[in-house]
Amino acid sequence: MGINAPLNRKLRMGLVGGGQGSFIGRVHSIAACLDNRAELVAGALSSDPDRAKASAPDYDIQPDRAYAGIKELIEKELALPTEKRIDFVSVATPNHTHFEVAKAAAEAGFAVFCDKPMTFDLSQAEELARIVEKTKGVFVVTHNYTGYPLVRQAREMILAGELGEINAVRSCYIQGWLRSRLESSGQKQAEWRTDPKRSGIAGCFGDIATHAYNLGRFMTGLIPDTVSCHLKTFEPGRALDDYGTAIIRYKNGALGSVTASQISHGRENDLRIEIDGTKGSLEWNQENPNQMIYRRNGQPMALYTRGGGPYLGSMAAGATRIPAGHPEGYLEAFANIYAAGFEAIAARAAGNHADCRNSLFPNVFDGVDGMNFITQCVASSQQNAGWLSLYHSACR
Amino acid sequence: MGINAPLNRKLRMGLVGGGQGSFIGRVHSIAACLDNRAELVAGALSSDPDRAKASAPDYDIQPDRAYAGIKELIEKELALPTEKRIDFVSVATPNHTHFEVAKAAAEAGFAVFCDKPMTFDLSQAEELARIVEKTKGVFVVTHNYTGYPLVRQAREMILAGELGEINAVRSCYIQGWLRSRLESSGQKQAEWRTDPKRSGIAGCFGDIATHAYNLGRFMTGLIPDTVSCHLKTFEPGRALDDYGTAIIRYKNGALGSVTASQISHGRENDLRIEIDGTKGSLEWNQENPNQMIYRRNGQPMALYTRGGGPYLGSMAAGATRIPAGHPEGYLEAFANIYAAGFEAIAARAAGNHADCRNSLFPNVFDGVDGMNFITQCVASSQQNAGWLSLYHSACR
Amino acid sequence: MGINAPLNRKLRMGLVGGGQGSFIGRVHSIAACLDNRAELVAGALSSDPDRAKASAPDYDIQPDRAYAGIKELIEKELALPTEKRIDFVSVATPNHTHFEVAKAAAEAGFAVFCDKPMTFDLSQAEELARIVEKTKGVFVVTHNYTGYPLVRQAREMILAGELGEINAVRSCYIQGWLRSRLESSGQKQAEWRTDPKRSGIAGCFGDIATHAYNLGRFMTGLIPDTVSCHLKTFEPGRALDDYGTAIIRYKNGALGSVTASQISHGRENDLRIEIDGTKGSLEWNQENPNQMIYRRNGQPMALYTRGGGPYLGSMAAGATRIPAGHPEGYLEAFANIYAAGFEAIAARAAGNHADCRNSLFPNVFDGVDGMNFITQCVASSQQNAGWLSLYHSACR
Amino acid sequence: MGINAPLNRKLRMGLVGGGQGSFIGRVHSIAACLDNRAELVAGALSSDPDRAKASAPDYDIQPDRAYAGIKELIEKELALPTEKRIDFVSVATPNHTHFEVAKAAAEAGFAVFCDKPMTFDLSQAEELARIVEKTKGVFVVTHNYTGYPLVRQAREMILAGELGEINAVRSCYIQGWLRSRLESSGQKQAEWRTDPKRSGIAGCFGDIATHAYNLGRFMTGLIPDTVSCHLKTFEPGRALDDYGTAIIRYKNGALGSVTASQISHGRENDLRIEIDGTKGSLEWNQENPNQMIYRRNGQPMALYTRGGGPYLGSMAAGATRIPAGHPEGYLEAFANIYAAGFEAIAARAAGNHADCRNSLFPNVFDGVDGMNFITQCVASSQQNAGWLSLYHSACR
Repeated sequence: MGINAPLNRKLRMGLVGGGQGSFIGRVHSIAACLDNRAELVAGALSSDPDRAKASAPDYDIQPDRAYAGIKELIEKELALPTEKRIDFVSVATPNHTHFEVAKAAAEAGFAVFCDKPMTFDLSQAEELARIVEKTKGVFVVTHNYTGYPLVRQAREMILAGELGEINAVRSCYIQGWLRSRLESSGQKQAEWRTDPKRSGIAGCFGDIATHAYNLGRFMTGLIPDTVSCHLKTFEPGRALDDYGTAIIRYKNGALGSVTASQISHGRENDLRIEIDGTKGSLEWNQENPNQMIYRRNGQPMALYTRGGGPYLGSMAAGATRIPAGHPEGYLEAFANIYAAGFEAIAARAAGNHADCRNSLFPNVFDGVDGMNFITQCVASSQQNAGWLSLYHSACR
Repeated sequence: MGINAPLNRKLRMGLVGGGQGSFIGRVHSIAACLDNRAELVAGALSSDPDRAKASAPDYDIQPDRAYAGIKELIEKELALPTEKRIDFVSVATPNHTHFEVAKAAAEAGFAVFCDKPMTFDLSQAEELARIVEKTKGVFVVTHNYTGYPLVRQAREMILAGELGEINAVRSCYIQGWLRSRLESSGQKQAEWRTDPKRSGIAGCFGDIATHAYNLGRFMTGLIPDTVSCHLKTFEPGRALDDYGTAIIRYKNGALGSVTASQISHGRENDLRIEIDGTKGSLEWNQENPNQMIYRRNGQPMALYTRGGGPYLGSMAAGATRIPAGHPEGYLEAFANIYAAGFEAIAARAAGNHADCRNSLFPNVFDGVDGMNFITQCVASSQQNAGWLSLYHSACR
Repeated sequence: MGINAPLNRKLRMGLVGGGQGSFIGRVHSIAACLDNRAELVAGALSSDPDRAKASAPDYDIQPDRAYAGIKELIEKELALPTEKRIDFVSVATPNHTHFEVAKAAAEAGFAVFCDKPMTFDLSQAEELARIVEKTKGVFVVTHNYTGYPLVRQAREMILAGELGEINAVRSCYIQGWLRSRLESSGQKQAEWRTDPKRSGIAGCFGDIATHAYNLGRFMTGLIPDTVSCHLKTFEPGRALDDYGTAIIRYKNGALGSVTASQISHGRENDLRIEIDGTKGSLEWNQENPNQMIYRRNGQPMALYTRGGGPYLGSMAAGATRIPAGHPEGYLEAFANIYAAGFEAIAARAAGNHADCRNSLFPNVFDGVDGMNFITQCVASSQQNAGWLSLYHSACR
Repeated sequence: MGINAPLNRKLRMGLVGGGQGSFIGRVHSIAACLDNRAELVAGALSSDPDRAKASAPDYDIQPDRAYAGIKELIEKELALPTEKRIDFVSVATPNHTHFEVAKAAAEAGFAVFCDKPMTFDLSQAEELARIVEKTKGVFVVTHNYTGYPLVRQAREMILAGELGEINAVRSCYIQGWLRSRLESSGQKQAEWRTDPKRSGIAGCFGDIATHAYNLGRFMTGLIPDTVSCHLKTFEPGRALDDYGTAIIRYKNGALGSVTASQISHGRENDLRIEIDGTKGSLEWNQENPNQMIYRRNGQPMALYTRGGGPYLGSMAAGATRIPAGHPEGYLEAFANIYAAGFEAIAARAAGNHADCRNSLFPNVFDGVDGMNFITQCVASSQQNAGWLSLYHSACR
């Protein structure tokens, strides 16, 4: 039995976005291919056709499969024999083009791995979800932090009731890189992420708070009820929020909080989460992802390590490549998202269409929920932090 | 030149509360006497006269100065010659009796070191403040965490503008000891702290959130504007809150948050604070108080250690007893509060009545602000987290 | 029942050394009095009679009990009625005078708390031990790190067999303060600690390696067999070692290592120990003393916290003043050494002379063992790290 | 310009070893291909021909290039046209076969990436070095920890003199997985690593101490002089050492220590190093590799983070794929070793034969030095830790 059974072959990847200057395109390419289960064979690497061509050799994409855009990519790939054609499209463009690319790819029958936030606005997200429901294709939203083995361990423990009823979920995502008006200095990343035309209605909250919210949902499976949010723009002249706090009331009575900052000096990608249950509590930090703290009153604090022992469940074990003590990081976690998507692609090839609202990977419905969260946070903030309802469409 | 110049003698302490089963009474006694600048000579250690007498030998208080209550203590001490009479009264009783004891002591001309929250309700707090304004006596509220050397270092740095304009203050105080209904098991500490008749209108928020709020005020000097608060009682049957989050808007536009929990498994006294300024950010954690993190974009994170070097200012240096690397803890920080109060007592003896709204130690006005914070948090929570105004009377 | 039962009174302390510029004198005074079980009433604070007198007010010692030296102290104190006379002498002078002071005090019938290394050389140490054996007085050597609650917890666990057979003991004590020739700049501490006439034959090894060695002996009770040692002096012109590593073979086959440095930039008092047993391993670090790590293969790492719960034994519980999460530090640990000595003083007052080789506090035989360790390390280093025997006289 | 310029193509990898049950074969394959600069096309995955064939699909190796052994691999690959032929051989077999495989591959003109320890004994290592000197081929020994960006940062700082003269190098590699006689339970990894016939004369010291020693040499460039070593076998019945400490005297007078353990409960791959220079000190820990501590007396401790800012040099920057705060781990560091080897392969293709004793990647001479270290450690231990000389052949 080979890789990606029952297909018994590598999957073929088409990358959209990721041209020179992109960070996340390279991440998608490494993550998809890390386990030797996929190879990158085609790309539409930039919206600028010249840059798209010029970027191809960096990825070892052959010139004839370096396309000028998603349209050409789909057209030409569909014209190829199936044994050469790409299996999936990875969307690593700025937010405002996610929808167009992802929609085209999904409708053409390709599996899609789309960066987050999934779309520019909520209505696009809902439309994507309808398409996926119809096509029953694989659609992955790269809320990549859910790929960390110990994050999955947390989910497994919580869903099994090990923590009891969940009362509180505190998550923070603290960065500092937008402390100054970097977007005025020509830094590409800063430019589009602070530009409402390309990022959507939220800045910091769309970029990172949505990860922190998704992480809590993934780990706990709690159903949200309402949200109250306060957004701030601390850097003068910036069009979008660069700081904010949201309070979430969950249906079971639990209280959640999500704080995100891009203006905290010296902070890198400090995504942390603390979860309190009636029987135990968990704490995890993305910058030190190979450890998770499990606490129970009256017992010594327990430090779980990735791969650390038989106390870990199958979810964490299945997402680990190397033994404990040899750290895994961001790329490996990202690769775990891809791996789960590949499982789904192979399963569909075998005729097995799993429930598309409930998957190990973050799916199109998680993407909708993320857009709903962003939308309601911005609206709440505009209404002096008034309470607005949140809905949920993914089965978490 | 001796101790407590120009008095050149130890100060004499009278302790109210602190009988058998009390934790905080012993803390007051150790902290006051740690530097050999005070001695404990009198006490009204319990509201139960028998227990009051029985507890005296534990503190080496002579039988003739082991009183049955604050009334007797004041009467008898005033009858003593001044060279024997106590100089100050430490109030270590449950919250609901603070007012009565502190008022009597202050009006009798004694300096007062009162535990927090300062009173049972806001009106009592305001009355105490009026008394102190009139008597111009020394009145210290033991928001003890402000005594840590690195907390004072933070204040000195921020007031000197080293962090620039302050944008955000995030503080948390997370405990787990009230995860179960400990108050039903006869545990004295849990009993009174969860009893509205003895603790006041708030549980967790009165007990610990007030510390987290005060700490931010002390460090930054920011002026509060409004608060929105969500309190929860997660343990069924408990009369007061055991969890909550407050959002604070400061007058300068900064956003603050205070989260407090008593139901987080395995958490001890996890008081943390993060402060973001335009020029730098600070992070400090009470459980590891000999370190503070200072971050500036583009520079390596700097770890300040207590006593660590000439980079520290005079405030931190003045609050440190032993060299760096030999840890100081809670008792030493508490002793620093006493030391600052002793300075004020000695200064008054020399005729120097400093501005009573602005002192190194937390003063009666900080106590009022704490009660105002508690009062408005509870009211906001009852109004679905609506925004209510906060005032401030201490000069922070 | 009062303090120091059955004496039911505070003990009276006489301090030798500790004059202006001394660090350790103040530590002895605070530690002895922290629990209100002792008071400092007499002193011979400096070898310079004027400085001795001038330093007395800092300690609130009355002029008539501020003596010019140990001789006068003993003479005058013995002349006082027993109910005023000091009970014990604390020796906080430079190393070369420990013997003279401690001998005089012990022979005069006072209990002694002597700083470490106990004497200038081994023969003095052995003589002191003979005196104590004869007088059966209380003699405490302030290997203060053994006073930390979790260090005692480790000892209790190991002696109870919880770790199985001990195979390895790795300890390090790393400092940086003597990286430069501080002794040439007039810094008093540096002067005497690097002066063979006052410190003895070892510098770094006498000052701090001896602590690291003693800590391992205290925790494990292992019996030493032989030692091989390499000492270095890295700062040009310095007379004594400022760096070194010793390998210790224990009788049971275990291997130990002690590394000490005073020339490691930025290191403060980084005393760490790791202990490997067949059933579990422990790790503890003096700069973060409220935590200890306990590891067993296949189980999550367990973090013990001081006061953290019922998993702690009676030794740790008995050495703790405040609840978990409120850190205790160096002074409290030092006070625990005093407290154990006070228990012994009180026990002797009750006619109970415990085995003087086996005590909770480090005793005169530990002091001898420390001097033996220093002596053999220096000799081994002079013989190209040849193996020399170690003996042990304390029951650890 | 494409990847691996001037070749402008992916390099082709042949993997020897790595069959089912192997950990390190998978690591080589992922690391080599991580950056899309190489692809795995051929293999001799097991010494058992059936298992070799059966393992091929796991790596997506086509059946016609799944060989039965190194001999067949070389014969068949040499018979292929150069544009299909592998460029390099990765040796991921147990130690005792490294020599035979690496020698054959090097002599056939392939670049070699050989696991460590490089050979079964020193004479084999020296012969390999002679071959490489003659063929001037690329020969990489995967002392993979030198691939971590901050390890390279340390090397760059030290070689630039930022730390001044180096006085001390303390390294430890502590594991716990061989605490029990795992080799008796059929665990393959444990079996060959504790078997003198397959591992060579050393167990723990050959497996991990050699990494710790190499790391110090790589970071500091210090030239070794002599070594004294004490090895122990704590698990009864085990044939090779499972614990030991070596003291190294460097030519410049510095003192080094290397401690390695495989019997420390709960320890995973705890490789730590501390380096003391006259101007500064560094500390780094493999389990938390994205941070490095830089200390200088009188200044706050500085925490360098991977990718953290302009304070990092070009070596660290060149070895980093993703921004700070998104952790990289073991696989990425391993990939950096491959990347440096690929640079050398491409350079040779361009006619540029760099000095083979001085390379960014650990080379065949480092491999010899590692074998020399192991050999002398074992000999010293057999002579009661007597001092034996160390030589060095790599330019570090």
